[in-house]
Amino acid sequence: MNPKIKYSQKTHNCGEVRLKNVGENVTLFGWVHRRRDHGGLIFLDLRDRSGLIQVVADPSLSREAFKIAQKVRGEYVISAKGKICRRPPETENPNLPTGEVELRADEIRIVSKAKTPPFEVEDGIVVDENLRLKYRYIDLRRREMLSSLELRHKVVACLRNFLNQEGFLEVETPYLTKSTPEGARDYLVPSRVHPGHFYALPQSPQLFKQILMVAGIERYYQIARCFRDEDLRADRQPEHTQIDLEMSFVSRDDILSLVEAMLKKVFLLINQDLIIPFPRMTYDEAMRRYGTDKPDLRYGLEITDLTPIFKETNFKVFAQVIRDGGVIRGIKVEKEFTRKQIDDVINLALQNGAKGLTWFSYLGGELKSPVVKFLNQDEIKNLIQAFQLRGKNTLFLMADQSHVASQVLGILRENLCKQLNLVKSNNFKFLWIINFPLFEYDEEEKRLKSHHHPFTSPTEESIPLLDSEPLKAKANAYDLVVNGVEIGGGSLRIHLTGLQEKIFSLLGLSPLEIKEKFGFLLEAFKYGVPPHGGIALGLDRLVMLMARRESIRDVIAFPKTQSAFCPLTKAPDAVKEKQLRELHIRLR
Amino acid sequence: MNPKIKYSQKTHNCGEVRLKNVGENVTLFGWVHRRRDHGGLIFLDLRDRSGLIQVVADPSLSREAFKIAQKVRGEYVISAKGKICRRPPETENPNLPTGEVELRADEIRIVSKAKTPPFEVEDGIVVDENLRLKYRYIDLRRREMLSSLELRHKVVACLRNFLNQEGFLEVETPYLTKSTPEGARDYLVPSRVHPGHFYALPQSPQLFKQILMVAGIERYYQIARCFRDEDLRADRQPEHTQIDLEMSFVSRDDILSLVEAMLKKVFLLINQDLIIPFPRMTYDEAMRRYGTDKPDLRYGLEITDLTPIFKETNFKVFAQVIRDGGVIRGIKVEKEFTRKQIDDVINLALQNGAKGLTWFSYLGGELKSPVVKFLNQDEIKNLIQAFQLRGKNTLFLMADQSHVASQVLGILRENLCKQLNLVKSNNFKFLWIINFPLFEYDEEEKRLKSHHHPFTSPTEESIPLLDSEPLKAKANAYDLVVNGVEIGGGSLRIHLTGLQEKIFSLLGLSPLEIKEKFGFLLEAFKYGVPPHGGIALGLDRLVMLMARRESIRDVIAFPKTQSAFCPLTKAPDAVKEKQLRELHIRLR
Repeated sequence: MNPKIKYSQKTHNCGEVRLKNVGENVTLFGWVHRRRDHGGLIFLDLRDRSGLIQVVADPSLSREAFKIAQKVRGEYVISAKGKICRRPPETENPNLPTGEVELRADEIRIVSKAKTPPFEVEDGIVVDENLRLKYRYIDLRRREMLSSLELRHKVVACLRNFLNQEGFLEVETPYLTKSTPEGARDYLVPSRVHPGHFYALPQSPQLFKQILMVAGIERYYQIARCFRDEDLRADRQPEHTQIDLEMSFVSRDDILSLVEAMLKKVFLLINQDLIIPFPRMTYDEAMRRYGTDKPDLRYGLEITDLTPIFKETNFKVFAQVIRDGGVIRGIKVEKEFTRKQIDDVINLALQNGAKGLTWFSYLGGELKSPVVKFLNQDEIKNLIQAFQLRGKNTLFLMADQSHVASQVLGILRENLCKQLNLVKSNNFKFLWIINFPLFEYDEEEKRLKSHHHPFTSPTEESIPLLDSEPLKAKANAYDLVVNGVEIGGGSLRIHLTGLQEKIFSLLGLSPLEIKEKFGFLLEAFKYGVPPHGGIALGLDRLVMLMARRESIRDVIAFPKTQSAFCPLTKAPDAVKEKQLRELHIRLR
Repeated sequence: MNPKIKYSQKTHNCGEVRLKNVGENVTLFGWVHRRRDHGGLIFLDLRDRSGLIQVVADPSLSREAFKIAQKVRGEYVISAKGKICRRPPETENPNLPTGEVELRADEIRIVSKAKTPPFEVEDGIVVDENLRLKYRYIDLRRREMLSSLELRHKVVACLRNFLNQEGFLEVETPYLTKSTPEGARDYLVPSRVHPGHFYALPQSPQLFKQILMVAGIERYYQIARCFRDEDLRADRQPEHTQIDLEMSFVSRDDILSLVEAMLKKVFLLINQDLIIPFPRMTYDEAMRRYGTDKPDLRYGLEITDLTPIFKETNFKVFAQVIRDGGVIRGIKVEKEFTRKQIDDVINLALQNGAKGLTWFSYLGGELKSPVVKFLNQDEIKNLIQAFQLRGKNTLFLMADQSHVASQVLGILRENLCKQLNLVKSNNFKFLWIINFPLFEYDEEEKRLKSHHHPFTSPTEESIPLLDSEPLKAKANAYDLVVNGVEIGGGSLRIHLTGLQEKIFSLLGLSPLEIKEKFGFLLEAFKYGVPPHGGIALGLDRLVMLMARRESIRDVIAFPKTQSAFCPLTKAPDAVKEKQLRELHIRLR
């Protein structure tokens, strides 16, 4: 016999009643999921968070209960008391965990009534998302939404247990703080007490977690809300949650191993036994082979470098590009494409920055293309060999500077994958991308920018390059990628004041700017700072992947729309003039 | 043999090395807590988060290590390699958990240097708090601060484990949202995308957690940051953390019992085995006996009601007050007071709203007072009996309306307790205050206000009073008080639309205001709402009490000052005109 649920007016949860409870007198509460009137009997599917159970109102058992059952409608909240009985054999429902039993009601009470909901409380409904967000309290009653929240809960509990066991301290850092240096736009909060001054909501706890390392916390984590006032893309929210951690006295591999062990635990929640360590790939290799720093390894379509084949070519287009330091690269589709399909691919390439795209079709052992006539027999042979052509194939080749070729072919690759439906596996393909560039060049501002953030340390070997060829310097930075989605990133940080100041000056920050923005961190570094590093994983994306949902909004209880609006509460909203006055601001 | 620490360049934590590790070769990292140069030998106390260990630099073992040890100073970060040895018997330190062993260093490396810190890394230092906040990374190195953060971590982990086991779902609610109805000033966040509109940072997740109940979550919790732009008092912060929970299908006692069981677990962390259930006292009784709704039960000094004794008195002051519906109440000090001490008490009473205070001294069986001559023998006898006077006593009596008498005597009681040092026990005296008034009268705005918040349900018996005598209506509300500090409060909520609308109208809210502020909640209530209730406990205060600290700032990693300023980061700060322009605001 199940013990009565503690701290509740229910004796049992609806979805947990089983054969072993037959004969017990129970009190259940829940929502009427469905009501079937079979004339002499009324059947109610009673739903609570745990699941459904069938409640039978039989006038021969209680005329009163039967009368009330006649009145109830979908989504009414009711209580039902009575005995758990075994269902007659032919009426068992094998699809329901409670399908062998039913509650024969002695008493039914209506706790609160319900209007007809704006959409069905069922999985897989097709409803405008704004309507779902406005009536989120109905939307969250749907099993698939509830399951996502439950999974999120379990993931977070599992992460915390793991990190607690590994000696991490959970420390809360302020939400009312100062601009953080992540580069996105800050949400600002006007101060009433300090006229003209503003707090910023943190884009991440980056500076605080580094300060905590200086304070000797050694292992910190926080499930932290982070805020970015960016133009929202499909999978962005004004506030997102990250699993934020930082460690002292560690190597890069210590951090990667810890994260691997943590995610192995977490994925067991959905019965996925991840193989660790995860593969590692340098940024350069990822860009060369997949044209992206977040490759989806569930499918091939790898980019092949053909530059050596065309070193001596007479085909002018290729020759010119190679002379200019560019590359010839291509991908192979194991399929014959129609002229229309080929044109679509070419257009996509042009739209994404290609100056042109060369195609070949391979059929019956023969290579065809408008440019075949410019190639010699060796080149054709080598091309066939490089791509290991067999059966029916289509090739797309690009000739351009390396980074343009990577970018365009990366997009083609992703697009062709979708078009050809190449992702067959439902597995999770994890991959570490390592050895990121330390800097990138900002064409607009004509200066170096940090590829990650300015606290990222260069690799030991890169330090001599800082003065001579800073764009060739590599960082002790790493991203974690799953199925083409970046779910986290981090780095070993700089812990030496001199090096940190050098990086700031390479970024073109003036001493005054440095002092204003990061002065307190540099000051802290003067009082004994341990070597440290960390990572932040996006919780929303992680749970989205685990729950196999398409949108992070499906794993957030109360998300905002793409215009950062909440259809439920109607936030943001107008405020009173008095409030603005107190905050020393006015509207423009 | 301890296994090597995982995911670290250390093999062991400094404070965890014991006799059983003797003979092991270890690598330690940490801060130099103290350095003693004994000529031939140098002793370094190496500190990490786990504690201290003695490192010995002996030139006969390694001349190199000895040379480096000569150079290190306090708070330098170093690594030390070598063998763990048993200390020579006469040099053992019984005050240190590692006091039987030491590390004889083969190698010492300086990882980073440190300037002399602005204050000592020791417990119990007397330093201006602003300096501690500015150099928080030094302050947090002190064992007492670190212990507070560690305790906070453990408390939160314990709370979560308990709630997870009881079937609660942890759900994150938005921080960028709409004004909540807690009555304090909101922090506002201007929207860039919606010109002239503002988000509010939540004063609590109240509305969202009620929406989650409508959504069928049944048991919700969150360790939630809450924001109030109030003038800061000693124990207030612009952002504080609360343990926020809500339950469906519960009675008041279900919630109280759950909280009791949870706190029993939590207090075991500091070896306090709480006796549950906690005592319960009605609001009216607390006000009558202690003059406050958060009485500290660690001492007596109870307020005695003397009104019946003076029902027929000839003493005009008392007689007049009783005629006007007032009360005569007093407290007894078990001590003879000097005239000066008596005057101080009288002044305190006058400053706090008393029109006068009558005193008596009792000495050698005789009652003395300027007013004794106005009292008859029965009155004197009854007074002696009511207070059970014996030995030396001083009495203070107030004649006024009940709420004034409660307020003033409550303040006197607290003050006399401090003056006489009456709190002898270090125990935790928990107390539930129940049956709060549903409303209070706002003299300024000449209207009813909610004593808690407008979603608090009236008790069953009070519903008939709502129209006739609303100020007599009691609420299903409860506060949890420990040693005179309120650490939490909650209520059963209203779950019926009609009753909720009635309460709003009694509060003088117009239909338009109701719709604007709470429309979405009332709308949600139309789709099947379960009976529900909850509580929020202040985490900062709870941990402060458990850590036996005087200020919540000592249990917050990065608190603000009383002017809501962060001396470490200098937030809030000026921002760029461009940012204001993007947010469609300007400064006044």
